[in-house]
Amino acid sequence: MPILAPETGTLIMQRVEELALISESNVGLTRRFATPEHRRANQLATQWMELAGMHVHEDAIGNVIGRYEGDEPLAPAIMLGSHLDTVVMAGKYDGMLGVLSGLACVEYLAANNRRLPYAIEVIGFADEEGVRYQSTFLGSRALTGELDTAMLELTDKDGISMSDALVAFGKDPSQLPTAIREPGSLAAFIEVHIEQGPVLEQQELGVGVVSAIAGATRMIATITGEAGHAGTVPMSLRRDALAAAAECILVIERLCSGPADLVGTVGRIVADPGAGNVISGQTEFSIDIRAADDSRRLQAVAEVVRELKKLCANRQLQIHIEEVHNAGSVECDTGLRRHIGDAVASCGLRTLELTSGAGHDTMVMAHIAPAGLIFVRCAGGISHNPAESIMASDAALGAEVMMQTVLNFSQQ
Amino acid sequence: MPILAPETGTLIMQRVEELALISESNVGLTRRFATPEHRRANQLATQWMELAGMHVHEDAIGNVIGRYEGDEPLAPAIMLGSHLDTVVMAGKYDGMLGVLSGLACVEYLAANNRRLPYAIEVIGFADEEGVRYQSTFLGSRALTGELDTAMLELTDKDGISMSDALVAFGKDPSQLPTAIREPGSLAAFIEVHIEQGPVLEQQELGVGVVSAIAGATRMIATITGEAGHAGTVPMSLRRDALAAAAECILVIERLCSGPADLVGTVGRIVADPGAGNVISGQTEFSIDIRAADDSRRLQAVAEVVRELKKLCANRQLQIHIEEVHNAGSVECDTGLRRHIGDAVASCGLRTLELTSGAGHDTMVMAHIAPAGLIFVRCAGGISHNPAESIMASDAALGAEVMMQTVLNFSQQ
Repeated sequence: MPILAPETGTLIMQRVEELALISESNVGLTRRFATPEHRRANQLATQWMELAGMHVHEDAIGNVIGRYEGDEPLAPAIMLGSHLDTVVMAGKYDGMLGVLSGLACVEYLAANNRRLPYAIEVIGFADEEGVRYQSTFLGSRALTGELDTAMLELTDKDGISMSDALVAFGKDPSQLPTAIREPGSLAAFIEVHIEQGPVLEQQELGVGVVSAIAGATRMIATITGEAGHAGTVPMSLRRDALAAAAECILVIERLCSGPADLVGTVGRIVADPGAGNVISGQTEFSIDIRAADDSRRLQAVAEVVRELKKLCANRQLQIHIEEVHNAGSVECDTGLRRHIGDAVASCGLRTLELTSGAGHDTMVMAHIAPAGLIFVRCAGGISHNPAESIMASDAALGAEVMMQTVLNFSQQ
Repeated sequence: MPILAPETGTLIMQRVEELALISESNVGLTRRFATPEHRRANQLATQWMELAGMHVHEDAIGNVIGRYEGDEPLAPAIMLGSHLDTVVMAGKYDGMLGVLSGLACVEYLAANNRRLPYAIEVIGFADEEGVRYQSTFLGSRALTGELDTAMLELTDKDGISMSDALVAFGKDPSQLPTAIREPGSLAAFIEVHIEQGPVLEQQELGVGVVSAIAGATRMIATITGEAGHAGTVPMSLRRDALAAAAECILVIERLCSGPADLVGTVGRIVADPGAGNVISGQTEFSIDIRAADDSRRLQAVAEVVRELKKLCANRQLQIHIEEVHNAGSVECDTGLRRHIGDAVASCGLRTLELTSGAGHDTMVMAHIAPAGLIFVRCAGGISHNPAESIMASDAALGAEVMMQTVLNFSQQ
């Protein structure tokens, strides 16, 4: 039997629509960090949080945080939430769903006059997507103290520095350290987020337990061959950079198709000179390899690099591979995973653990608190797109699992 | 022993340099149809032709034609030559070499007071590359009567119609039919042209005999899969359009790597949306398949289309293949091929027959006269590029083979 009120799913969906009206773009949803739309979204969240009986404040980076006290006034808090910013032409659920799920939990506690041994804080992070300053997780990094003050000098596409944007948002950049939460002050961080992938849908499950957030290696490969006339150079004398790149793409696909949590993607390719009647003399492509298991990822990267070099050598072509990003994976807290799994089971569902290939605030929050992440099924795995869609019943399920996880955690 | 004067190669190379000074662009060589530079090139060619004792006229499309009479004043002519126009940022030999080789032949005949049973005409075609009006072979098609008058309405990038360009060039577009040469009025057409490919260089031969000019099929393939997050969609659930395109490219390479004269090229590829962290939802690429043997080409095209459809079906992806060009091959005249081969042998060289993957004026002239094409080695097979380069000794060899072919043909 669910604990939360039967209308929880519908209420979350209504609030999603209300938040989606606050957009920089007339078509689609766009809400970047420290914009007037960010201000309006924080105001709306504040209003809901206060109605739920929370004390609300906005920290020095612009995170909106509501606190519902526990049995003891200064008890350590369980923090629930996600982010309120979006990508350009975004969907309505990525981020917002987690904030509204946390809010629904507090509304249940308040409606039933329940106090837990922990305070509950609900947070709407100011920036996770990193659209405005090409630097992700500004909100959660402000809490963990990982926000480099040199970043205040970054400028957006209109030349506005982060420092000036904060001032315009009503903040004092010198006060950023006040947003830091000391380790120990948070007993746990729990996030609800749409999966942004197709696994739950394919498994016919409304929710899943995230075991780890994948690490990622990104590389740029450049193959240099010899351009030539498509009609006059016999196949045996060609040094075709695009044909070699095609072989590379299939090698990457093959080497990354083994273990379930390993993925490899070539999404960008540029064949030069790029005319139908000219053999490509140079072709550049991106490589993105991710895995929850770092050693598996690094082994795959090494194999890919080795095989690509070998096949290009066989074709008498040069290949240059540059690594542009390399981040380790983050495992979700074992205790929280167990609590989330129990909560899923108590909803009568099969517990599926899956890894997240995309980054989430949970990843950063794990640096200062036990952190757990609950995935909610989204239609077709589509995200970062106005077509992003979830079912109200799954929204209710995500909030229900979050609530029961909090209760399980509090009773341990 | 060569017939032509020992300085022939040096002279051709000097004249190539003189012609290369007449360019629309300050850097590199650019000389398009019916431009002031075309006018100046025709004037220079006229001057050389007249000094060699030829009667020169410019026909209604702007081809410059010099005539050196034979034994009888109205004898049918053997026409020698190639084109005087260039691509943008061209090399100096593509086209010009054939005109200057023909000129060298007449200079030899005139210097030795030799008259043949045929008149010799040397032609500098006005347009072969088709750069200005995106329509190739304007010069030779005017001679064969294949120039559609509707083409006079085509406009160049500055909005100038072909009709207006001809008027500005001093021509009367209504007189175009006067350029037509009746079948039978030309006993033969012989062209010297750089190979624009690497075969002669690889075979260590200065010249080669072209057996046929390849036919070509050009297609555009569009694969539609499903875009997705590079981190969140497991390999087994992907419908990656770029990975499928990579497989297609390798299939095309494999199916076209059998018979020596068959070539298949993918030179252009566009993966959509084209971001490193997004699985491509749609990828489009060009396919260019050529062979001297039409049935071989059409069989290869059918096999490629069949295999591409099969592999995309296996990946559960849609593929749409559109044919945008389909032209049959043109065989060079058997008798002329034998004469050219004999001429090569009399120069003490091995006779190599090869096919031309690129189109040439010979292709069009074959419609009204026995036509033959002599290829001259060029460095690295590089063409349509300022780096185009040949050796003076090979230039001499090309002219020598042309001359001996004319003599062989005249004595038959």
